[in-house]
Amino acid sequence: MPFQYSRRIYLADTDAAGVIYFAKGMEICHEAYEESLASSRINLKQIIEEKKIALPIVRGEIDFLRPLFCGDRITINLTTKLINSREFAVNYQIFHVANSDKILVKAKTNHVSIDPAKRIRIDLPTAILNWLEAYEIEN
Amino acid sequence: MPFQYSRRIYLADTDAAGVIYFAKGMEICHEAYEESLASSRINLKQIIEEKKIALPIVRGEIDFLRPLFCGDRITINLTTKLINSREFAVNYQIFHVANSDKILVKAKTNHVSIDPAKRIRIDLPTAILNWLEAYEIEN
Amino acid sequence: MPFQYSRRIYLADTDAAGVIYFAKGMEICHEAYEESLASSRINLKQIIEEKKIALPIVRGEIDFLRPLFCGDRITINLTTKLINSREFAVNYQIFHVANSDKILVKAKTNHVSIDPAKRIRIDLPTAILNWLEAYEIEN
Amino acid sequence: MPFQYSRRIYLADTDAAGVIYFAKGMEICHEAYEESLASSRINLKQIIEEKKIALPIVRGEIDFLRPLFCGDRITINLTTKLINSREFAVNYQIFHVANSDKILVKAKTNHVSIDPAKRIRIDLPTAILNWLEAYEIEN
Repeated sequence: MPFQYSRRIYLADTDAAGVIYFAKGMEICHEAYEESLASSRINLKQIIEEKKIALPIVRGEIDFLRPLFCGDRITINLTTKLINSREFAVNYQIFHVANSDKILVKAKTNHVSIDPAKRIRIDLPTAILNWLEAYEIEN
Repeated sequence: MPFQYSRRIYLADTDAAGVIYFAKGMEICHEAYEESLASSRINLKQIIEEKKIALPIVRGEIDFLRPLFCGDRITINLTTKLINSREFAVNYQIFHVANSDKILVKAKTNHVSIDPAKRIRIDLPTAILNWLEAYEIEN
Repeated sequence: MPFQYSRRIYLADTDAAGVIYFAKGMEICHEAYEESLASSRINLKQIIEEKKIALPIVRGEIDFLRPLFCGDRITINLTTKLINSREFAVNYQIFHVANSDKILVKAKTNHVSIDPAKRIRIDLPTAILNWLEAYEIEN
Repeated sequence: MPFQYSRRIYLADTDAAGVIYFAKGMEICHEAYEESLASSRINLKQIIEEKKIALPIVRGEIDFLRPLFCGDRITINLTTKLINSREFAVNYQIFHVANSDKILVKAKTNHVSIDPAKRIRIDLPTAILNWLEAYEIEN
Protein backbone atom coordinates (compact mmCIF):
# COMPACT_ATOMS: atom_id res chain seq x y z
CA MET A 1 0.00 0.00 0.00
CA PRO A 2 1.58 3.31 -0.99
CA PHE A 3 1.99 6.19 1.46
CA GLN A 4 0.22 9.33 0.23
CA TYR A 5 1.32 12.93 0.69
CA SER A 6 -0.45 15.98 -0.75
CA ARG A 7 0.67 19.58 -1.04
CA ARG A 8 0.40 22.55 -3.35
CA ILE A 9 3.07 23.71 -5.84
CA TYR A 10 4.25 27.06 -4.45
CA LEU A 11 5.85 30.01 -6.21
CA ALA A 12 9.20 29.05 -4.66
CA ASP A 13 8.96 25.71 -6.52
CA THR A 14 8.74 27.40 -9.92
CA ASP A 15 11.21 29.34 -12.06
CA ALA A 16 11.06 32.09 -14.67
CA ALA A 17 10.23 29.51 -17.37
CA GLY A 18 6.80 29.31 -15.69
CA VAL A 19 6.77 25.71 -14.47
CA ILE A 20 8.29 23.74 -11.59
CA TYR A 21 12.09 23.96 -11.33
CA PHE A 22 13.28 20.36 -11.86
CA ALA A 23 15.33 20.00 -8.66
CA LYS A 24 12.35 21.18 -6.60
CA GLY A 25 10.51 18.09 -7.86
CA MET A 26 13.10 16.01 -5.99
CA GLU A 27 12.70 18.15 -2.85
CA ILE A 28 8.94 17.65 -2.86
CA CYS A 29 9.42 13.87 -3.14
CA HIS A 30 11.80 14.02 -0.17
CA GLU A 31 9.06 15.74 1.86
CA ALA A 32 6.84 12.72 1.14
CA TYR A 33 9.67 10.45 2.36
CA GLU A 34 9.98 12.46 5.60
CA GLU A 35 6.21 12.38 6.15
CA SER A 36 6.15 8.61 5.60
CA LEU A 37 8.93 8.17 8.20
CA ALA A 38 6.97 10.36 10.63
CA SER A 39 3.83 8.27 9.99
CA SER A 40 5.84 5.23 11.20
CA ARG A 41 6.92 7.20 14.30
CA ILE A 42 10.50 7.49 13.06
CA ASN A 43 11.91 10.75 14.49
CA LEU A 44 14.34 12.24 11.96
CA LYS A 45 15.45 15.02 14.33
CA GLN A 46 16.41 12.44 16.97
CA ILE A 47 18.25 10.31 14.38
CA ILE A 48 20.24 13.36 13.27
CA GLU A 49 21.06 14.40 16.84
CA GLU A 50 22.06 10.93 18.07
CA LYS A 51 24.49 10.54 15.16
CA LYS A 52 24.35 6.73 15.32
CA ILE A 53 22.96 6.32 11.84
CA ALA A 54 22.41 8.35 8.69
CA LEU A 55 20.52 7.39 5.53
CA PRO A 56 22.13 9.50 2.79
CA ILE A 57 20.88 9.39 -0.77
CA VAL A 58 23.47 7.86 -3.08
CA ARG A 59 21.33 8.15 -6.20
CA GLY A 60 18.34 10.22 -7.25
CA GLU A 61 16.43 10.19 -10.53
CA ILE A 62 13.36 12.02 -11.75
CA ASP A 63 11.25 11.96 -14.91
CA PHE A 64 8.92 14.80 -15.83
CA LEU A 65 6.09 13.44 -17.98
CA ARG A 66 3.95 16.57 -17.77
CA PRO A 67 4.61 20.09 -16.41
CA LEU A 68 3.58 21.23 -12.92
CA PHE A 69 2.40 24.81 -12.45
CA CYS A 70 2.24 27.21 -9.53
CA GLY A 71 -0.93 26.54 -7.50
CA ASP A 72 -1.36 22.94 -8.66
CA ARG A 73 -2.54 20.60 -5.88
CA ILE A 74 -0.59 17.33 -6.14
CA THR A 75 -0.51 13.95 -4.44
CA ILE A 76 2.60 11.80 -4.20
CA ASN A 77 2.28 8.02 -3.98
CA LEU A 78 5.35 6.64 -2.20
CA THR A 79 6.43 3.00 -2.19
CA THR A 80 9.58 1.40 -0.79
CA LYS A 81 11.95 -1.40 -1.75
CA LEU A 82 14.54 -3.12 0.43
CA ILE A 83 17.64 -3.74 -1.72
CA ASN A 84 19.90 -5.38 0.86
CA SER A 85 20.58 -5.11 4.61
CA ARG A 86 22.29 -1.74 4.08
CA GLU A 87 20.42 -0.17 1.18
CA PHE A 88 16.87 0.67 0.10
CA ALA A 89 15.03 2.56 -2.62
CA VAL A 90 11.98 4.84 -2.48
CA ASN A 91 9.72 5.31 -5.51
CA TYR A 92 7.49 8.34 -6.04
CA GLN A 93 4.65 9.02 -8.45
CA ILE A 94 3.14 12.52 -8.60
CA PHE A 95 -0.49 13.10 -9.68
CA HIS A 96 -2.90 16.00 -9.66
CA VAL A 97 -5.08 15.62 -6.56
CA ALA A 98 -8.18 15.43 -8.74
CA ASN A 99 -6.80 12.93 -11.22
CA SER A 100 -4.99 9.83 -10.01
CA ASP A 101 -4.92 8.27 -13.51
CA LYS A 102 -2.31 10.47 -15.11
CA ILE A 103 1.24 10.31 -13.72
CA LEU A 104 2.90 13.74 -13.96
CA VAL A 105 6.30 12.93 -12.45
CA LYS A 106 8.11 9.72 -11.49
CA ALA A 107 11.12 9.75 -9.19
CA LYS A 108 13.33 7.39 -7.19
CA THR A 109 15.90 7.80 -4.44
CA ASN A 110 18.44 5.18 -3.31
CA HIS A 111 19.57 5.37 0.28
CA VAL A 112 22.36 3.61 2.18
CA SER A 113 22.66 3.12 5.92
CA ILE A 114 25.90 4.53 7.32
CA ASP A 115 27.68 5.40 10.55
CA PRO A 116 27.75 9.20 10.05
CA ALA A 117 31.01 9.73 12.00
CA LYS A 118 33.06 7.04 10.22
CA ARG A 119 31.01 7.25 7.01
CA ILE A 120 31.02 3.44 6.59
CA ARG A 121 27.96 1.32 5.77
CA ILE A 122 26.09 -0.39 8.60
CA ASP A 123 22.93 -2.53 8.80
CA LEU A 124 19.54 -0.83 8.61
CA PRO A 125 17.87 -0.56 12.05
CA THR A 126 14.65 -2.47 12.77
CA ALA A 127 12.49 0.67 12.75
CA ILE A 128 13.54 1.40 9.16
CA LEU A 129 13.02 -2.24 8.12
CA ASN A 130 9.47 -2.06 9.52
CA TRP A 131 8.81 1.21 7.69
CA LEU A 132 10.12 -0.34 4.45
CA GLU A 133 7.78 -3.30 4.88
CA ALA A 134 4.77 -1.04 5.50
CA TYR A 135 5.05 0.68 2.12
CA GLU A 136 6.64 -2.08 0.02
CA ILE A 137 4.84 -3.04 -3.17
CA GLU A 138 4.84 -6.62 -4.47
CA ASN A 139 5.55 -6.94 -8.15
CA MET B 1 -9.21 36.71 12.25
CA PRO B 2 -5.81 35.32 11.21
CA PHE B 3 -5.44 32.76 8.45
CA GLN B 4 -3.76 29.60 9.71
CA TYR B 5 -1.36 27.35 7.82
CA SER B 6 0.42 24.31 9.25
CA ARG B 7 3.31 22.27 7.92
CA ARG B 8 6.36 20.37 9.07
CA ILE B 9 9.95 21.64 8.98
CA TYR B 10 11.68 19.41 6.40
CA LEU B 11 15.33 18.50 6.00
CA ALA B 12 15.54 20.84 3.00
CA ASP B 13 14.60 23.72 5.33
CA THR B 14 17.60 23.11 7.60
CA ASP B 15 21.34 23.58 7.18
CA ALA B 16 24.52 21.99 8.56
CA ALA B 17 24.25 24.15 11.70
CA GLY B 18 21.32 21.88 12.64
CA VAL B 19 18.42 24.34 12.62
CA ILE B 20 16.25 26.06 10.00
CA TYR B 21 18.19 28.08 7.39
CA PHE B 22 17.01 31.68 7.92
CA ALA B 23 15.87 32.40 4.34
CA LYS B 24 13.73 29.23 4.39
CA GLY B 25 11.75 30.84 7.21
CA MET B 26 10.70 33.51 4.71
CA GLU B 27 9.80 30.86 2.09
CA ILE B 28 7.57 29.05 4.58
CA CYS B 29 5.77 32.32 5.38
CA HIS B 30 5.24 32.88 1.66
CA GLU B 31 3.57 29.45 1.44
CA ALA B 32 1.09 30.64 4.10
CA TYR B 33 0.47 33.76 1.96
CA GLU B 34 -0.22 31.62 -1.13
CA GLU B 35 -2.56 29.33 0.83
CA SER B 36 -4.47 32.34 2.18
CA LEU B 37 -4.90 33.68 -1.37
CA ALA B 38 -6.14 30.26 -2.49
CA SER B 39 -8.59 30.18 0.44
CA SER B 40 -10.08 33.41 -0.98
CA ARG B 41 -10.32 31.78 -4.43
CA ILE B 42 -7.51 33.95 -5.81
CA ASN B 43 -5.74 31.93 -8.51
CA LEU B 44 -2.04 32.81 -8.50
CA LYS B 45 -1.31 30.75 -11.62
CA GLN B 46 -3.98 32.67 -13.58
CA ILE B 47 -2.67 36.03 -12.28
CA ILE B 48 0.85 35.12 -13.43
CA GLU B 49 -0.35 33.94 -16.84
CA GLU B 50 -2.64 36.90 -17.54
CA LYS B 51 0.21 39.34 -16.78
CA LYS B 52 -2.22 42.15 -15.91
CA ILE B 53 -1.00 42.49 -12.35
CA ALA B 54 1.87 41.35 -10.16
CA LEU B 55 2.29 41.75 -6.40
CA PRO B 56 6.08 41.73 -5.88
CA ILE B 57 7.58 41.93 -2.42
CA VAL B 58 9.46 45.21 -1.95
CA ARG B 59 10.48 44.47 1.63
CA GLY B 60 10.78 41.36 3.78
CA GLU B 61 11.83 41.06 7.41
CA ILE B 62 12.08 38.13 9.80
CA ASP B 63 12.93 37.71 13.49
CA PHE B 64 13.95 34.37 14.93
CA LEU B 65 13.04 34.27 18.62
CA ARG B 66 13.65 30.55 19.05
CA PRO B 67 15.21 27.90 16.77
CA LEU B 68 13.18 25.56 14.54
CA PHE B 69 14.38 21.98 14.06
CA CYS B 70 13.87 19.32 11.39
CA GLY B 71 10.60 17.50 12.04
CA ASP B 72 8.97 20.31 14.04
CA ARG B 73 5.26 20.77 13.25
CA ILE B 74 4.50 24.48 13.03
CA THR B 75 1.49 26.73 12.53
CA ILE B 76 1.68 30.16 10.93
CA ASN B 77 -0.83 32.84 11.88
CA LEU B 78 -1.15 35.27 8.98
CA THR B 79 -2.74 38.72 9.16
CA THR B 80 -2.93 41.48 6.56
CA LYS B 81 -2.75 45.27 6.47
CA LEU B 82 -3.79 47.60 3.65
CA ILE B 83 -1.21 50.41 3.50
CA ASN B 84 -2.61 52.38 0.56
CA SER B 85 -4.44 51.67 -2.72
CA ARG B 86 -1.25 50.20 -4.22
CA GLU B 87 0.51 48.58 -1.28
CA PHE B 88 -0.15 46.11 1.53
CA ALA B 89 1.69 44.21 4.25
CA VAL B 90 1.37 40.64 5.49
CA ASN B 91 2.37 39.67 9.04
CA TYR B 92 3.33 36.15 10.09
CA GLN B 93 3.78 34.53 13.50
CA ILE B 94 5.14 30.99 13.70
CA PHE B 95 4.29 28.67 16.63
CA HIS B 96 4.72 25.01 17.40
CA VAL B 97 1.44 23.28 16.54
CA ALA B 98 1.09 22.13 20.13
CA ASN B 99 1.88 25.48 21.75
CA SER B 100 0.23 28.63 20.47
CA ASP B 101 1.52 30.73 23.40
CA LYS B 102 5.16 30.94 22.43
CA ILE B 103 6.05 32.82 19.23
CA LEU B 104 9.06 31.20 17.54
CA VAL B 105 9.39 33.45 14.49
CA LYS B 106 7.87 36.76 13.42
CA ALA B 107 7.99 37.96 9.82
CA LYS B 108 6.51 40.59 7.55
CA THR B 109 6.35 41.12 3.80
CA ASN B 110 5.43 44.36 2.01
CA HIS B 111 3.89 44.02 -1.43
CA VAL B 112 3.12 46.55 -4.15
CA SER B 113 0.66 46.20 -6.99
CA ILE B 114 2.28 46.67 -10.41
CA ASP B 115 1.70 46.27 -14.11
CA PRO B 116 4.27 43.50 -14.71
CA ALA B 117 5.06 44.54 -18.30
CA LYS B 118 5.65 48.25 -17.60
CA ARG B 119 6.71 47.67 -13.99
CA ILE B 120 4.72 50.70 -12.76
CA ARG B 121 2.42 50.76 -9.73
CA ILE B 122 -1.32 50.29 -10.26
CA ASP B 123 -4.33 50.04 -7.93
CA LEU B 124 -4.97 46.78 -6.10
CA PRO B 125 -7.81 44.77 -7.69
CA THR B 126 -11.04 44.15 -5.77
CA ALA B 127 -10.29 40.47 -5.15
CA ILE B 128 -7.09 41.39 -3.33
CA LEU B 129 -8.86 44.14 -1.35
CA ASN B 130 -11.45 41.59 -0.23
CA TRP B 131 -8.72 39.11 0.76
CA LEU B 132 -6.95 41.86 2.73
CA GLU B 133 -10.16 42.66 4.57
CA ALA B 134 -10.77 39.01 5.45
CA TYR B 135 -7.52 38.67 7.38
CA GLU B 136 -7.00 42.24 8.60
CA ILE B 137 -6.52 42.70 12.35
CA GLU B 138 -7.83 45.76 14.18
CA ASN B 139 -5.39 47.30 16.62
CA MET C 1 36.51 19.71 -24.25
CA PRO C 2 34.42 20.05 -21.11
CA PHE C 3 33.13 23.36 -19.83
CA GLN C 4 34.35 24.08 -16.30
CA TYR C 5 32.49 25.88 -13.53
CA SER C 6 33.74 26.38 -9.99
CA ARG C 7 31.96 27.51 -6.85
CA ARG C 8 31.88 26.90 -3.12
CA ILE C 9 29.35 24.72 -1.27
CA TYR C 10 27.33 27.19 0.82
CA LEU C 11 25.40 26.66 4.05
CA ALA C 12 22.15 26.87 2.05
CA ASP C 13 23.29 23.80 0.07
CA THR C 14 23.59 21.65 3.21
CA ASP C 15 21.06 20.17 5.62
CA ALA C 16 20.97 19.19 9.29
CA ALA C 17 22.63 15.84 8.45
CA GLY C 18 25.79 17.92 7.88
CA VAL C 19 26.42 17.35 4.17
CA ILE C 20 24.98 18.65 0.90
CA TYR C 21 21.22 18.19 0.49
CA PHE C 22 20.88 15.86 -2.51
CA ALA C 23 18.57 18.04 -4.64
CA LYS C 24 20.97 20.98 -4.23
CA GLY C 25 23.54 18.89 -6.08
CA MET C 26 21.23 19.04 -9.10
CA GLU C 27 20.78 22.81 -8.71
CA ILE C 28 24.55 23.34 -8.68
CA CYS C 29 24.88 21.30 -11.88
CA HIS C 30 22.19 23.46 -13.47
CA GLU C 31 24.23 26.56 -12.61
CA ALA C 32 27.11 25.04 -14.61
CA TYR C 33 24.68 24.49 -17.52
CA GLU C 34 23.56 28.13 -17.37
CA GLU C 35 27.18 29.36 -17.23
CA SER C 36 28.07 27.19 -20.24
CA LEU C 37 25.15 28.68 -22.22
CA ALA C 38 26.31 32.18 -21.24
CA SER C 39 29.85 31.33 -22.36
CA SER C 40 28.37 30.57 -25.81
CA ARG C 41 26.55 33.94 -25.75
CA ILE C 42 23.15 32.27 -25.33
CA ASN C 43 20.95 34.66 -23.37
CA LEU C 44 18.59 32.65 -21.16
CA LYS C 45 16.65 35.73 -20.00
CA GLN C 46 15.92 36.65 -23.64
CA ILE C 47 14.89 33.08 -24.48
CA ILE C 48 12.47 33.07 -21.55
CA GLU C 49 11.02 36.47 -22.45
CA GLU C 50 10.62 35.76 -26.18
CA LYS C 51 8.69 32.55 -25.41
CA LYS C 52 9.59 31.00 -28.79
CA ILE C 53 11.45 28.09 -27.30
CA ALA C 54 11.95 26.39 -23.95
CA LEU C 55 14.37 23.60 -23.04
CA PRO C 56 12.72 21.84 -20.09
CA ILE C 57 14.41 18.97 -18.31
CA VAL C 58 12.49 15.72 -18.86
CA ARG C 59 14.87 13.60 -16.84
CA GLY C 60 17.51 14.23 -14.18
CA GLU C 61 19.76 11.77 -12.39
CA ILE C 62 22.52 12.17 -9.84
CA ASP C 63 24.98 9.82 -8.10
CA PHE C 64 26.75 10.80 -4.91
CA LEU C 65 30.05 8.91 -4.71
CA ARG C 66 31.46 10.95 -1.81
CA PRO C 67 29.92 13.57 0.50
CA LEU C 68 30.26 17.33 -0.07
CA PHE C 69 30.59 19.60 2.97
CA CYS C 70 29.90 23.27 3.66
CA GLY C 71 32.86 25.37 2.51
CA ASP C 72 34.16 22.83 -0.03
CA ARG C 73 35.44 24.42 -3.24
CA ILE C 74 34.27 22.33 -6.19
CA THR C 75 34.68 22.26 -9.97
CA ILE C 76 32.07 20.85 -12.33
CA ASN C 77 33.14 19.41 -15.67
CA LEU C 78 30.21 19.70 -18.09
CA THR C 79 29.91 17.84 -21.39
CA THR C 80 27.02 17.67 -23.84
CA LYS C 81 25.41 15.09 -26.10
CA LEU C 82 22.98 15.66 -28.98
CA ILE C 83 20.38 12.88 -28.85
CA ASN C 84 18.20 13.90 -31.80
CA SER C 85 17.01 17.13 -33.45
CA ARG C 86 14.72 17.86 -30.48
CA GLU C 87 16.58 16.44 -27.49
CA PHE C 88 19.98 16.61 -25.81
CA ALA C 89 21.73 15.49 -22.63
CA VAL C 90 24.19 17.26 -20.35
CA ASN C 91 26.67 15.32 -18.21
CA TYR C 92 28.27 16.68 -15.05
CA GLN C 93 31.19 15.48 -12.93
CA ILE C 94 31.94 17.24 -9.65
CA PHE C 95 35.48 17.32 -8.17
CA HIS C 96 37.22 19.15 -5.37
CA VAL C 97 39.03 22.11 -6.94
CA ALA C 98 42.35 20.79 -5.65
CA ASN C 99 41.81 17.21 -6.81
CA SER C 100 40.56 16.48 -10.29
CA ASP C 101 41.26 12.74 -9.98
CA LYS C 102 38.45 11.81 -7.61
CA ILE C 103 34.88 12.20 -8.87
CA LEU C 104 32.58 13.19 -5.99
CA VAL C 105 29.28 13.44 -7.83
CA LYS C 106 28.05 12.45 -11.31
CA ALA C 107 24.84 13.85 -12.76
CA LYS C 108 22.93 14.04 -16.04
CA THR C 109 20.02 16.09 -17.32
CA ASN C 110 17.96 15.36 -20.45
CA HIS C 111 16.37 18.35 -22.15
CA VAL C 112 13.79 18.62 -24.93
CA SER C 113 13.15 21.57 -27.19
CA ILE C 114 9.54 22.77 -27.05
CA ASP C 115 7.22 25.57 -28.05
CA PRO C 116 6.43 26.85 -24.53
CA ALA C 117 2.93 28.10 -25.41
CA LYS C 118 1.71 24.92 -27.13
CA ARG C 119 4.06 22.64 -25.15
CA ILE C 120 4.90 20.58 -28.26
CA ARG C 121 8.39 19.51 -29.35
CA ILE C 122 10.22 21.60 -31.96
CA ASP C 123 13.70 21.47 -33.52
CA LEU C 124 16.66 22.78 -31.54
CA PRO C 125 17.79 26.22 -32.75
CA THR C 126 21.23 26.67 -34.34
CA ALA C 127 22.68 28.49 -31.34
CA ILE C 128 21.95 25.50 -29.12
CA LEU C 129 23.33 23.06 -31.72
CA ASN C 130 26.57 25.10 -31.79
CA TRP C 131 26.76 25.12 -27.99
CA LEU C 132 26.22 21.33 -27.94
CA GLU C 133 29.04 20.86 -30.43
CA ALA C 134 31.42 23.04 -28.38
CA TYR C 135 31.21 20.81 -25.33
CA GLU C 136 30.49 17.43 -26.89
CA ILE C 137 32.85 14.60 -25.94
CA GLU C 138 33.77 11.85 -28.41
CA ASN C 139 33.66 8.36 -26.95
CA MET D 1 36.34 48.82 2.82
CA PRO D 2 33.47 46.58 1.72
CA PHE D 3 33.98 42.94 0.77
CA GLN D 4 32.84 42.26 -2.79
CA TYR D 5 31.21 39.12 -4.13
CA SER D 6 29.93 38.61 -7.68
CA ARG D 7 27.74 35.92 -9.16
CA ARG D 8 25.01 35.44 -11.73
CA ILE D 9 21.26 35.21 -11.03
CA TYR D 10 20.38 31.61 -11.94
CA LEU D 11 17.07 30.10 -13.00
CA ALA D 12 16.76 28.50 -9.54
CA ASP D 13 16.78 32.03 -8.03
CA THR D 14 13.72 33.09 -10.04
CA ASP D 15 10.04 32.18 -9.90
CA ALA D 16 7.12 31.99 -12.33
CA ALA D 17 6.53 35.76 -11.94
CA GLY D 18 9.74 36.14 -13.98
CA VAL D 19 12.05 37.85 -11.48
CA ILE D 20 14.12 36.79 -8.46
CA TYR D 21 12.15 35.04 -5.70
CA PHE D 22 12.49 37.37 -2.68
CA ALA D 23 13.88 34.83 -0.20
CA LYS D 24 16.59 33.88 -2.70
CA GLY D 25 17.84 37.47 -2.42
CA MET D 26 18.61 36.72 1.23
CA GLU D 27 20.36 33.45 0.30
CA ILE D 28 22.60 35.23 -2.19
CA CYS D 29 23.56 37.79 0.48
CA HIS D 30 24.43 34.91 2.82
CA GLU D 31 26.78 33.51 0.16
CA ALA D 32 28.61 36.87 0.23
CA TYR D 33 28.84 36.57 4.04
CA GLU D 34 30.32 33.06 3.74
CA GLU D 35 32.83 34.20 1.11
CA SER D 36 33.88 37.12 3.30
CA LEU D 37 34.48 34.73 6.23
CA ALA D 38 36.52 32.47 3.95
CA SER D 39 38.56 35.49 2.78
CA SER D 40 39.51 36.03 6.46
CA ARG D 41 40.51 32.36 6.73
CA ILE D 42 37.50 31.55 8.92
CA ASN D 43 36.54 27.92 8.27
CA LEU D 44 32.77 27.55 8.56
CA LYS D 45 32.87 23.76 8.18
CA GLN D 46 35.29 23.50 11.12
CA ILE D 47 33.17 25.86 13.25
CA ILE D 48 30.10 23.73 12.57
CA GLU D 49 31.91 20.46 13.32
CA GLU D 50 33.61 21.68 16.53
CA LYS D 51 30.25 22.87 17.93
CA LYS D 52 31.91 25.39 20.26
CA ILE D 53 30.22 28.38 18.69
CA ALA D 54 27.40 29.17 16.29
CA LEU D 55 26.45 32.52 14.77
CA PRO D 56 22.72 32.18 14.02
CA ILE D 57 20.77 34.96 12.35
CA VAL D 58 18.23 36.47 14.74
CA ARG D 59 16.96 39.03 12.26
CA GLY D 60 17.03 39.43 8.48
CA GLU D 61 15.63 42.23 6.35
CA ILE D 62 15.69 42.93 2.63
CA ASP D 63 14.51 45.77 0.38
CA PHE D 64 14.02 45.31 -3.34
CA LEU D 65 14.49 48.66 -5.09
CA ARG D 66 14.62 47.21 -8.60
CA PRO D 67 13.91 43.72 -10.00
CA LEU D 68 16.65 41.14 -10.70
CA PHE D 69 16.28 38.86 -13.72
CA CYS D 70 17.65 35.44 -14.69
CA GLY D 71 21.12 35.84 -16.17
CA ASP D 72 21.88 39.20 -14.50
CA ARG D 73 25.48 39.49 -13.28
CA ILE D 74 25.47 41.13 -9.86
CA THR D 75 28.01 42.34 -7.28
CA ILE D 76 27.29 42.45 -3.56
CA ASN D 77 29.07 45.01 -1.37
CA LEU D 78 29.24 43.66 2.18
CA THR D 79 30.04 45.70 5.27
CA THR D 80 29.98 44.72 8.94
CA LYS D 81 29.04 46.32 12.24
CA LEU D 82 29.92 45.14 15.76
CA ILE D 83 26.85 45.73 17.96
CA ASN D 84 28.17 44.37 21.27
CA SER D 85 30.48 41.58 22.45
CA ARG D 86 27.88 38.96 21.49
CA GLU D 87 26.15 40.43 18.46
CA PHE D 88 26.95 41.88 15.03
CA ALA D 89 25.21 43.00 11.86
CA VAL D 90 26.10 42.52 8.19
CA ASN D 91 24.89 44.96 5.52
CA TYR D 92 24.57 44.10 1.85
CA GLN D 93 24.05 46.23 -1.25
CA ILE D 94 23.44 44.53 -4.60
CA PHE D 95 24.39 46.19 -7.91
CA HIS D 96 24.62 45.12 -11.53
CA VAL D 97 28.26 44.28 -12.20
CA ALA D 98 28.41 46.94 -14.91
CA ASN D 99 26.74 49.68 -12.85
CA SER D 100 27.85 50.34 -9.29
CA ASP D 101 25.82 53.56 -9.03
CA LYS D 102 22.35 52.07 -8.84
CA ILE D 103 21.50 49.96 -5.78
CA LEU D 104 19.11 47.15 -6.74
CA VAL D 105 18.69 45.45 -3.37
CA LYS D 106 19.63 46.32 0.21
CA ALA D 107 19.70 43.72 2.97
CA LYS D 108 20.88 43.23 6.53
CA THR D 109 21.37 40.24 8.81
CA ASN D 110 21.82 40.35 12.60
CA HIS D 111 23.82 37.53 14.15
CA VAL D 112 24.39 36.48 17.75
CA SER D 113 27.20 34.36 19.12
CA ILE D 114 25.94 31.28 20.97
CA ASP D 115 27.05 28.00 22.48
CA PRO D 116 25.16 25.70 20.04
CA ALA D 117 24.64 22.90 22.58
CA LYS D 118 23.23 25.04 25.41
CA ARG D 119 21.88 27.71 23.03
CA ILE D 120 23.01 30.56 25.33
CA ARG D 121 24.88 33.69 24.19
CA ILE D 122 28.68 33.78 24.50
CA ASP D 123 31.35 36.31 23.52
CA LEU D 124 32.42 36.56 19.89
CA PRO D 125 35.79 34.87 19.26
CA THR D 126 38.83 36.93 18.20
CA ALA D 127 38.78 35.63 14.61
CA ILE D 128 35.25 36.98 14.14
CA LEU D 129 36.16 40.30 15.80
CA ASN D 130 39.06 40.65 13.35
CA TRP D 131 36.82 39.83 10.40
CA LEU D 132 34.27 42.41 11.62
CA GLU D 133 37.00 45.04 11.82
CA ALA D 134 38.24 44.27 8.31
CA TYR D 135 34.91 45.11 6.69
CA GLU D 136 33.52 47.69 9.13
CA ILE D 137 32.50 51.03 7.66
CA GLU D 138 32.94 54.27 9.60
CA ASN D 139 29.94 56.56 9.50
